[in-house]
Amino acid sequence: MLTVHHLGKSQSERIVWLCEELAIPYELKLYERDRVTLLAPPEYKALHPTQAAPVIFDGDLVLAESGAIMEYIIAKFGRGRFTVPADHPDYPQYLYWFHAANGTILPSLGRNMLMGMLNLTADNPRVAALRARLERHLQMVEARLGEAPYFAGQEFTAADIIMVFCLTTMRYFMPVNLTPFPNILAYLQRISERPAYRRAMAKGDPGMALLLT
Amino acid sequence: MLTVHHLGKSQSERIVWLCEELAIPYELKLYERDRVTLLAPPEYKALHPTQAAPVIFDGDLVLAESGAIMEYIIAKFGRGRFTVPADHPDYPQYLYWFHAANGTILPSLGRNMLMGMLNLTADNPRVAALRARLERHLQMVEARLGEAPYFAGQEFTAADIIMVFCLTTMRYFMPVNLTPFPNILAYLQRISERPAYRRAMAKGDPGMALLLT
Repeated sequence: MLTVHHLGKSQSERIVWLCEELAIPYELKLYERDRVTLLAPPEYKALHPTQAAPVIFDGDLVLAESGAIMEYIIAKFGRGRFTVPADHPDYPQYLYWFHAANGTILPSLGRNMLMGMLNLTADNPRVAALRARLERHLQMVEARLGEAPYFAGQEFTAADIIMVFCLTTMRYFMPVNLTPFPNILAYLQRISERPAYRRAMAKGDPGMALLLT
Repeated sequence: MLTVHHLGKSQSERIVWLCEELAIPYELKLYERDRVTLLAPPEYKALHPTQAAPVIFDGDLVLAESGAIMEYIIAKFGRGRFTVPADHPDYPQYLYWFHAANGTILPSLGRNMLMGMLNLTADNPRVAALRARLERHLQMVEARLGEAPYFAGQEFTAADIIMVFCLTTMRYFMPVNLTPFPNILAYLQRISERPAYRRAMAKGDPGMALLLT
């Protein structure tokens, strides 16, 4: 039986959500961030040397890294669901957003968050450059969600499951005003209507307000 | 015919290298960084909205993001080479390192580089914390390369192609002393003996010293 170790308000919400979408049996273990530092507690850090969420156990396997865990679960339990086959016209878009989530967009949000933690403001040219880059990434997301209802195209896929955290819960750490992005807001509304998403959030982060607007 | 747009001293060296390993026909277009800012030139930024390397063209397709491009090329031209099938015991390790390269390790190097650009030093607790996290990631790499000759296991795979940039050319931007990591150094020696790696570096970055030690 798969065990999903979920750190509250973290990337591991994706793994809970994926399991709910696939309707597979899994054991969910919840961990709370330290109230002062907001970091993972020692019990979470002890799960995997990277000391970061998400982490799953599957028999003897201990696996970290959102993209790796999602591909592993889909390959083992998904029978192709929520992916796009390599001969489908949407395959490049699927790959792009699946990898851009943690390869470009989350690092961009994280660097901007770090500038705030260092109390650096927009009069610093590095801060301004990082902010401009984040704005560009958000504009790309907005443009994509104007072309298609989901990141890969007409169908909901794992690219959505990995991207949504960047647009929702990550904003607890790096606030982003989505008012200028109507396509993103309409998309988050569509996502919020998915029963599996609602179940995952209720199980993983009971009581957390979902940042869908 | 595939066109690989390679920005000198950048992540796109992975795509040149992958094409050389697969021995597929491709057109290579070279771009140099601005000498003062070290940023991509306007012609490169115009290729894709993300304005970052790598970018490929394939017919009407314009694709960015290292992981996405590598999966696309392997799916279309690789016939499974340099990947690990989902039923192989090395599959989780393959997935982990393939995703950790740009999902964790490169962002960690990038945040440390940014601290240097901001002239922040190790007496700043955030800088010290980021440095400690990078050290942990390097220790994980060192440990993995003590268990197996390649990231996925006994065989050279795309996980190596995506990881090597983090351990070599990225050090032009974020210097890392590898002397304390004998397994990494021995690994880079093995990599440097691959004819396709040598050809890729000679074509993509002629004259660039390879940071293999």
